[in-house]
Amino acid sequence: MTASPAPVYDWTVLDDATREALLARPVQTVAQRTRDAVAGLLADVQARGDAALREVTARFDGVELATFEVSEAEFAAAHTAVPADLRQAMQEAAERIEAFHRAGMAQPYSVETAPGVVCERMILPIPRVGLYVPAGSAPLPSTALMLGIPSRLAGCREVVLCTPPRKDGTADPAVLVAAQLTGVRCVFKLGGAQAIAAMAFGTDSVPACDKLFGPGNSYVTEAKQQVAQSGAAAIDMPAGPSEVLVIADAGADAAFVAADLLSQAEHGPDSQVLLLSDDEGLIERVQAELATQLAELDRADIARQALSASRLVKVATLDEAFAISNRYAPEHLILALRDARAWLGRVEAAGSVFLGDYTPEALGDYCSGTNHVLPTSGAARAYSGVSVASFQNFVSVQSASRAGIAAIGDCAVTLARAEGLDAHANAVALRLRKAAA
Amino acid sequence: MTASPAPVYDWTVLDDATREALLARPVQTVAQRTRDAVAGLLADVQARGDAALREVTARFDGVELATFEVSEAEFAAAHTAVPADLRQAMQEAAERIEAFHRAGMAQPYSVETAPGVVCERMILPIPRVGLYVPAGSAPLPSTALMLGIPSRLAGCREVVLCTPPRKDGTADPAVLVAAQLTGVRCVFKLGGAQAIAAMAFGTDSVPACDKLFGPGNSYVTEAKQQVAQSGAAAIDMPAGPSEVLVIADAGADAAFVAADLLSQAEHGPDSQVLLLSDDEGLIERVQAELATQLAELDRADIARQALSASRLVKVATLDEAFAISNRYAPEHLILALRDARAWLGRVEAAGSVFLGDYTPEALGDYCSGTNHVLPTSGAARAYSGVSVASFQNFVSVQSASRAGIAAIGDCAVTLARAEGLDAHANAVALRLRKAAA
Repeated sequence: MTASPAPVYDWTVLDDATREALLARPVQTVAQRTRDAVAGLLADVQARGDAALREVTARFDGVELATFEVSEAEFAAAHTAVPADLRQAMQEAAERIEAFHRAGMAQPYSVETAPGVVCERMILPIPRVGLYVPAGSAPLPSTALMLGIPSRLAGCREVVLCTPPRKDGTADPAVLVAAQLTGVRCVFKLGGAQAIAAMAFGTDSVPACDKLFGPGNSYVTEAKQQVAQSGAAAIDMPAGPSEVLVIADAGADAAFVAADLLSQAEHGPDSQVLLLSDDEGLIERVQAELATQLAELDRADIARQALSASRLVKVATLDEAFAISNRYAPEHLILALRDARAWLGRVEAAGSVFLGDYTPEALGDYCSGTNHVLPTSGAARAYSGVSVASFQNFVSVQSASRAGIAAIGDCAVTLARAEGLDAHANAVALRLRKAAA
Repeated sequence: MTASPAPVYDWTVLDDATREALLARPVQTVAQRTRDAVAGLLADVQARGDAALREVTARFDGVELATFEVSEAEFAAAHTAVPADLRQAMQEAAERIEAFHRAGMAQPYSVETAPGVVCERMILPIPRVGLYVPAGSAPLPSTALMLGIPSRLAGCREVVLCTPPRKDGTADPAVLVAAQLTGVRCVFKLGGAQAIAAMAFGTDSVPACDKLFGPGNSYVTEAKQQVAQSGAAAIDMPAGPSEVLVIADAGADAAFVAADLLSQAEHGPDSQVLLLSDDEGLIERVQAELATQLAELDRADIARQALSASRLVKVATLDEAFAISNRYAPEHLILALRDARAWLGRVEAAGSVFLGDYTPEALGDYCSGTNHVLPTSGAARAYSGVSVASFQNFVSVQSASRAGIAAIGDCAVTLARAEGLDAHANAVALRLRKAAA
């Protein structure tokens, strides 16, 4: 077992402290230097707008841009540059993403809570939203689909998308085609914290946005945190490294499980990878498969680093596995179990769940229809993945007739007086008198 | 007009800078001293738990508490102490709040996005939630209802409620009765930032919570921000002073409008109060009413301070009024208009809307059925008020059969390769081969 690329643990023999340590995410301490650098950059963009953006882009992206907005000509060139099979794949993925997201859209409703008192929920799009599509180790057109489609379904008035420029001053063509597929036309070649700053504060060229969405590196994440904290813009959710937890039984296919662990591991050296199984034989077979498959990967170095911090854990029972998973609250949870659906009721916290042997995480990443922007670092305990609702506001509306206030006014007066709020009581009492007159 | 308790402006003659200033909220700068004090308190509670809570409670609330949890005997005593009419009012309010919130609950759903590919949304309660019910200038049993009812409808496993102790070591009886009405039994006599710390980190007596809800003073607000920022617990929304914007036409009842402005003003000296009207006569009548009604109020001093910073604004048209309101994005928006419903479609951002002459804000505060925990300070542009969904996680679930992955696998492989993620492609390709075998 020493040659295994991933360390193995036996949960049953571990003490509480070791168990806790095994489930702990690496603390994402943002260096004070990073924090200050981001704060400085935000302040600079807020103060100097496009001029600051141009300087920062020259410094970090190595390219001088006169304008940031992607032109019609660039969209057209992107369309030509992207191979037909990739365009077709994006189109198909977009259709399924739209079908799933549309079916889950909340509806307005209305309830007469007392005779003459109607309470309603009205659903409004968030007026102006900003989408960030990273292009660090690789551009992510799939993220443009995952953010663009729900923003369009929500009906947001203004949708802005930022993605980093390449050295030649163009944006990744696949990202542009994906943006276009979702109806997003307002795309800016801006990356990193400067993109977040531009969308949060607005500049002469980039419109200010009410809420910002999307993954990114530690600078992007820190910038999103800072603008959310200051109230400049809301954000979709806190972000950390991507993670998968697989629960597999003796009948699972070791090659599939290993491939799923590796597809998480290749995201980055800090990716979190866990396997829980009640079968020692399965764990051994997965180890062997990991070694074999790892050798074949282009991104083997990245995956190897992530795997060295991964945890293959032997548990006594599947019940124990679910208890651990619920405590960990993984972003992605794969149930490589016989009759996986029967176990679904055990899940208390996860971003997205993948049932059975033929549902790899990669399907959800790209084209099953679900969203891949999901809560990480245990945030799945209290945050949900992106959906159409993430782009909407739910506004309550109430209207009382004279009969309505006559029916419930005394109740309000009694509560207002109990809370010592006279003017509240008075606002109701005045109407009660006139309604009775 | 010089005797008016509220300053009047004519929007049409103002320049852009003055307009902007009129709509600006007072910047809620948290003094570095406050920030540091809260950070120190959080760290202390995290490190020393109940011992720290006892010391802080003695210092700030002036009472030595051996235990924080409210006992059965205290609940029973509270029931006796609360007058029957108040108990009855709370019961009635609870029923309407429940009816409205229940009707808006999201449902799970399932879509077959391709043959053999089923995508679902599963709805899970957030496991452990913490509710904060302040008792600053007055205890707020209504807030216990507004938070307790949706937490119960969501089915949260553990619901903790903190409310400050009184000098005699007991909690406000009305708050306890309200908590009981909603089924919340786990109540702690803890106030301020220490209550937030206890619920975020957990102590020997207070369970740790995944998400914290509720209004509070600047220390509570800062503590919530800090625990959310550090990832210790999620929070419902950012918080600022309460606010109302009234749009009134010539036909509005000046006494009603004045009463609504005053019921906002009495909340605190920093409450935000705006009136927009296209009718100068109405504004004059409202000014006169404000002076008359103000004299009668118990909390006249507070209301007078808030009014002195309020803005009664003459606009050219109601269209202009809606443009201003949408820019301001008020927590509470009252449409004191003839045929108010016809104007509802103009609203782009608000926390809760009140239609017509007989729907004072106080109805929504207490007993129409809608929630009164709402986004302030312009957050209504990107945040919604509390609902059952605030206490739930929405988890996507997907399952593909062999036929399912055969249908969409190539699409995933193409996208994965385009993004340079080989292991993702491999996880799908392995299954495609086996499914075809």
